[in-house]
Amino acid sequence: MIRILALDASAKAASAAVCEDEKCVALYYQNSAPVHSVTLLPMAEEMLGGCGLSLSDIDLIAVSRGPGSFTGLRIAAAAAKGLMWGADKPGCGVSTLEAMAWQAAHMKGSLICCVMDARRGEVYNALFRADGARPLRLCPDRALSLDALLDETDEPLLLIGDGAELCAAEMTRRGRAFTLAPENIRHQNAYGVAMAALHVPEDRRESTDPVYLRLSQAERERNARLAAEKNNSRK
Amino acid sequence: MIRILALDASAKAASAAVCEDEKCVALYYQNSAPVHSVTLLPMAEEMLGGCGLSLSDIDLIAVSRGPGSFTGLRIAAAAAKGLMWGADKPGCGVSTLEAMAWQAAHMKGSLICCVMDARRGEVYNALFRADGARPLRLCPDRALSLDALLDETDEPLLLIGDGAELCAAEMTRRGRAFTLAPENIRHQNAYGVAMAALHVPEDRRESTDPVYLRLSQAERERNARLAAEKNNSRK
Repeated sequence: MIRILALDASAKAASAAVCEDEKCVALYYQNSAPVHSVTLLPMAEEMLGGCGLSLSDIDLIAVSRGPGSFTGLRIAAAAAKGLMWGADKPGCGVSTLEAMAWQAAHMKGSLICCVMDARRGEVYNALFRADGARPLRLCPDRALSLDALLDETDEPLLLIGDGAELCAAEMTRRGRAFTLAPENIRHQNAYGVAMAALHVPEDRRESTDPVYLRLSQAERERNARLAAEKNNSRK
Repeated sequence: MIRILALDASAKAASAAVCEDEKCVALYYQNSAPVHSVTLLPMAEEMLGGCGLSLSDIDLIAVSRGPGSFTGLRIAAAAAKGLMWGADKPGCGVSTLEAMAWQAAHMKGSLICCVMDARRGEVYNALFRADGARPLRLCPDRALSLDALLDETDEPLLLIGDGAELCAAEMTRRGRAFTLAPENIRHQNAYGVAMAALHVPEDRRESTDPVYLRLSQAERERNARLAAEKNNSRK
């Protein structure tokens, strides 16, 4: 048995979970927490204490490394690294989209479309086939326009994530068939993070460093400024 | 919008949730909490505080009233009544089995078989048809033997609850088709309690008093003793 402490702060909600293999021992989910930096670690601590567990009882720290909110990902990564370092435990970063897909792994045959609102006309997305027990990945995580995503396939989609309603609205406009995942399996949470990490072989565990998929706003603005300066200096 | 605080302590796990209509604002679930009487109210209080809410922000207190663990049901009912009385809020008791069925309402067409291990050769059960959005009740909550339950229908069952594995083992023995709900939707939790309560019209809300379906062990033993005494006095 492997006991996993999992963290997620990749979107508006934050959550922590303790799992023993597939069994969910505890899940603490807050979709209204104003500041993840204030709430995430206390939630994890409170929950562990409630289970009568301490960090030394944990075998692996799992965290959703992205895509998602830049600030949220950094908070979760920092929290995970603190726990790993402080308690001398291994860690495993997992794709936020893959963690989300686990919520619908039982919808056998469905084409799971994990979709997060990435703003600026794009979504973060990956597609998975639900085989009844686990989600089989069909493409890498990517940032793309909703149009580009919907042009890829005519198959009905099972929509999951905070971009699901956005995607549903566009599919309705196009007269396409889809299923909107119900609220109880719609959003990523730390249980899904634990499940994704559980199924990664020990020698293939990924870093807990954030994966943003795109440049941050600060980097984009800096690049634009540097490009403009370069153009100006050429004149 | 109606904001519901929901509690469940009907089995080994205890949970509390805050919902705004269908939206899950927070869920705190503990499947290893040793003593519900110690953990349930603090969990609810911690979670509410984490959401920046107080009891005065809540419109309705929902609780799973049974069937389930006699002690757990009494703890949850007492907690619910304390909150209702203290904060002058209305309450709504819901069937534990119906709360559980909400977890699988999206499995369109499935015959949802909610099953809790009632010991002494029996299970607590109710059957529902998943219509994709909600569970439609097909029979009242009852306590019956696994044999009696499985003799009722030849249709494949979607098994949910802490008696699901027990039922799955017997169905395997009989060569029957079934689906075991995956861990993330297998167990009753306070989110399902809130959903069940949300769909009860205001003038049809049920009492929060526990519904045990069977006599408690103490009552059974007392009845047996009284019957024995009566027999003895006749001799």
